[in-house]
Amino acid sequence: MTITAENVSGLVVGEGCFYCESSADLKYKLGWRIRPAFCVEMRVDDREVLEAVQYHLGCGRIYDLDFGRYKSYENRNWMPHAKFRVTALPELRSNVVPFFERHPLFGRKADAFRLFSSLVSHLSSGHHRTEEGLEIAKRLASQLSQHNSRGKGN
Amino acid sequence: MTITAENVSGLVVGEGCFYCESSADLKYKLGWRIRPAFCVEMRVDDREVLEAVQYHLGCGRIYDLDFGRYKSYENRNWMPHAKFRVTALPELRSNVVPFFERHPLFGRKADAFRLFSSLVSHLSSGHHRTEEGLEIAKRLASQLSQHNSRGKGN
Repeated sequence: MTITAENVSGLVVGEGCFYCESSADLKYKLGWRIRPAFCVEMRVDDREVLEAVQYHLGCGRIYDLDFGRYKSYENRNWMPHAKFRVTALPELRSNVVPFFERHPLFGRKADAFRLFSSLVSHLSSGHHRTEEGLEIAKRLASQLSQHNSRGKGN
Repeated sequence: MTITAENVSGLVVGEGCFYCESSADLKYKLGWRIRPAFCVEMRVDDREVLEAVQYHLGCGRIYDLDFGRYKSYENRNWMPHAKFRVTALPELRSNVVPFFERHPLFGRKADAFRLFSSLVSHLSSGHHRTEEGLEIAKRLASQLSQHNSRGKGN
């Protein structure tokens, strides 16, 4: 399957998601955990497309989503999905962000990427380990989450 | 907004649809109407993306989908959508099909495109105006419809 880098950015505008988990977690020194992630979800019979995305980005894992909560959907002509996901901060910083800087996104997804990229850069610098830096990280995570959820039910 | 041709094909793998209406219609000589169409739907605040697709394909119209059946969704954090659509057979033949031959799709959408392209070619030849040719057109339309609806509820 031939998929170019610009095909990947076009696909990600439609099917990709830059998001961030941000929640209290007492295992962390400041009591808060921030975990950015990038994913692309497709039907499982388009798994090859995810493998091409993985190849282009040079990182990430592919998961089958055919378990648990999806079981009851089978009767509704539902097809299991697979998800490509990157959660490791060094991979987000060194692979994912530079890839989409070289092969730009567009539309609302480009706005999500800008917030995501700032967050990854901030976390990579380690500044979020201070109280002040953590507040900046929380704010970026919150902005990204708001961006993603506005009019989400579509 | 800079969107390359390969961005468009990547986007269409996620958000585009090649489909065909095929139904009895006594206004037609053989009593059957077959109308292929191509569309891309996005949230209305990504309308610029649809305009870029329209620019690349050099045809088609953009419609706002903020009416009727969507009204009741507003309370559910729903955002109105806009749809880019091409239905004119000469535009499908001269613009849409050649574009995706030059900038190939991939995955399951490439399979849909192959069926769609055969159908457009068949209809353009006028062979569907014979009983035998109409049966071929109906079969292609049915295959495309089956391809699109398999596991649709996702």
